[in-house]
Amino acid sequence: MLILGLDPGLGTTGWGIVRAEGNRLRHVANGKLVTDTKAPLPRRLAHLDAMLAALIADHAPDAAAVEEVFVNSNAQSTLKLGQARGVVLCAAARSGIDVGEYKPSTIKKAVVGTGAAEKAQVHAMVARLLPGVKIDGPDAGDALAVAICHAHHLASARRMF
Amino acid sequence: MLILGLDPGLGTTGWGIVRAEGNRLRHVANGKLVTDTKAPLPRRLAHLDAMLAALIADHAPDAAAVEEVFVNSNAQSTLKLGQARGVVLCAAARSGIDVGEYKPSTIKKAVVGTGAAEKAQVHAMVARLLPGVKIDGPDAGDALAVAICHAHHLASARRMF
Repeated sequence: MLILGLDPGLGTTGWGIVRAEGNRLRHVANGKLVTDTKAPLPRRLAHLDAMLAALIADHAPDAAAVEEVFVNSNAQSTLKLGQARGVVLCAAARSGIDVGEYKPSTIKKAVVGTGAAEKAQVHAMVARLLPGVKIDGPDAGDALAVAICHAHHLASARRMF
Repeated sequence: MLILGLDPGLGTTGWGIVRAEGNRLRHVANGKLVTDTKAPLPRRLAHLDAMLAALIADHAPDAAAVEEVFVNSNAQSTLKLGQARGVVLCAAARSGIDVGEYKPSTIKKAVVGTGAAEKAQVHAMVARLLPGVKIDGPDAGDALAVAICHAHHLASARRMF
């Protein structure tokens, strides 16, 4: 099963794909989708959408997952993030893929074992869980973390039902 | 020239289309796009996206416009609105249409003549400026108002250059 993790952002959206087979995880690919800060907002969103559509068409993931948003005290940042996040969720759902959402603490717990882990620990554990991975920056690392979290939850759900 | 005004919202997105010929305005159509409050967020966004794509394909507008967001003090509402707004801006831009953004006060000034107008005045003036229009609720009324505002600004720009 191919799982696509996404870390939405208007400037940079991180993505990471893992293959889950039973309890085994394998890294497939990761990277970031970057939009031109000088382009008008609607163009940037459409560019992000086109890159997501191409990514999903290339890899044909079976499931997707994103982090639940930590709502910022800066309302303008929240709006900006919301707009990018809307496009990301929409692009996944439009391709017929279900999208899991996880709290930051749930992702940290799944990857590191504690919900209070530091970002650096999360990325170090991602690298350990996916031998040979070369992580394309922090956004791609976050995306791989949410993909791993989703893989664990899908595996637990299968054991339960 | 066909101008599509949009009033984005996750639950209800209002839309309105006017035809601008020189200084004359004519109502073409208006309505609302409603998503199922019981569906998961990504599905709702993909449904909104599909309805927008169909609307744009049906009417082939030349330009689109939305209101600049009044950022809410409630961060969760801002995020929700941002997600819907991202899908709306993206759908327009993906169709190759430029999207104008206007402050609420600019829209009121264009429609009523004062930036401090009440909502009810705006809708009453929309009905007066577009004889025979039947407005499909307040969101469609807001969408027609931003379409009228965009028509005025495009007409002024033509006179200036």
